[in-house]
Amino acid sequence: MTFTEKLLDCSRRNDSLLCVGLDADLECIPRFLLKENDPVLAFNRAIVEATGDLVCAYKPNAAFYEALGEKGWRTLAATRRMVPDPIPVIVDAKRGDIGNTARLYARAFFEQLDFDAITVNPYMGFDAVAPFLEYPGRCALVLCLTSNPSAGEIEGLSADGQPVFVHVARRAMEWSRHGLCGLVAGATRTDDLRRIRQIAPRLPILIPGVGAQGGDLEQAVANGVDDAGELAIVNASRSVLYASGERDFAERARQEAMALREAINRARRSRGEKIRHGDRT
Amino acid sequence: MTFTEKLLDCSRRNDSLLCVGLDADLECIPRFLLKENDPVLAFNRAIVEATGDLVCAYKPNAAFYEALGEKGWRTLAATRRMVPDPIPVIVDAKRGDIGNTARLYARAFFEQLDFDAITVNPYMGFDAVAPFLEYPGRCALVLCLTSNPSAGEIEGLSADGQPVFVHVARRAMEWSRHGLCGLVAGATRTDDLRRIRQIAPRLPILIPGVGAQGGDLEQAVANGVDDAGELAIVNASRSVLYASGERDFAERARQEAMALREAINRARRSRGEKIRHGDRT
Repeated sequence: MTFTEKLLDCSRRNDSLLCVGLDADLECIPRFLLKENDPVLAFNRAIVEATGDLVCAYKPNAAFYEALGEKGWRTLAATRRMVPDPIPVIVDAKRGDIGNTARLYARAFFEQLDFDAITVNPYMGFDAVAPFLEYPGRCALVLCLTSNPSAGEIEGLSADGQPVFVHVARRAMEWSRHGLCGLVAGATRTDDLRRIRQIAPRLPILIPGVGAQGGDLEQAVANGVDDAGELAIVNASRSVLYASGERDFAERARQEAMALREAINRARRSRGEKIRHGDRT
Repeated sequence: MTFTEKLLDCSRRNDSLLCVGLDADLECIPRFLLKENDPVLAFNRAIVEATGDLVCAYKPNAAFYEALGEKGWRTLAATRRMVPDPIPVIVDAKRGDIGNTARLYARAFFEQLDFDAITVNPYMGFDAVAPFLEYPGRCALVLCLTSNPSAGEIEGLSADGQPVFVHVARRAMEWSRHGLCGLVAGATRTDDLRRIRQIAPRLPILIPGVGAQGGDLEQAVANGVDDAGELAIVNASRSVLYASGERDFAERARQEAMALREAINRARRSRGEKIRHGDRT
């Protein structure tokens, strides 16, 4: 089963494009969890139990775990193992190094930690991505256009009349001959997101920047999904994780995830209707 | 003391621009070490003891340690602690993520693991580098031009008449107002290396690709050093680490490191003479 198939299965079963970012921060999780043996793992477990039927994927960002040192690495491994098997888990690691070293990263994240997908940085070109494409059931999500303020400095440089991120999207299409690539495109730049979707009509696109980062959800969905209204992975982290800092945090996370799933699905339906009426913008 | 000062101190004391990459691979280190409690740490310790008076820095690549899981993370921390204090240690991690997350990476590598410098990926722009510049004694070495075959795909795109890597070098100069940036530029493209040195006359430049990756050492040194013949960090990994796979590995690593240091210094002297004779090429 390819990553795309696993993603579509989970997305259809849960009627959801929502991905919850498991970016637990010791400074933000409810205080009462700090007495647990592994507070971050306990927090993640409660979040996954409360939202497992509402998501298309989970996405821990490796930085949150590396910041906890060796123990954090253990927590990352345990977090991945704790997610029920049918739900894809993407590690947001943004790795990018040359062949020899990238192969070690691929081994670490795909073989040892058993993640379904990883975010990778395309700056060094194909060599930095290729080792992640040697795993038929996995996926390399290539950073294309990010949602941070300085994204334009390099990603937005105009090369041969096209911004660098357009070159990256096209390269990812070439690299993905076996369907093992996806893209990462921030929700804050919806016109650019549409352009990326046009270049890559059938690749999964991970869309961070919804919620705490303030992207326009409806536009992001309308421009990020494929023709069937699928294959967008709309990530929210803090708005779900920290909906409450009290004992009801998991219940409140569930409510927030339900609201986001529904808002995403409204945007999908509204887009579908516009297409049927021939007035797709 | 800034990173640049620490680097110059060590480089002058040991009369060396050689950096040894501590990229120990369980499949490559001498078999007899495998019975040690931590074979990679034992290997690294022997290499550092054999070469500590011959280098300007050490550079472990994080991937080699992450591939060993949680235990690898412990080995990376122990490796850093084991290097004598006056020798700078660069972690080759090529991290690049937005502010919030980059801050966690900075905390992990500078505060927890206490590295002197880290390699960072500039694709996302300043936001991905800024958190590493908040540590006055540390340094962010910005990936500029790498030595792998596909480096040209993105790094070499022509934007406004200049390749992307030239834009990156210029950005790094702006970002480095407080002297906390350096650059990474591969040894395999010496004309481009000269161009990067001209843009950044006083930044440290880490030059991988010497030795096993086949760069032309003399050209790399001539084009990579600053006006005083310093501030190039010429990295060699496998050619030093695996000079022998037997019990004499540390002694052979020392011989190889001495030969490389001497070859680098010959190139420095030859460059200096050419400059004095006014025929710098």
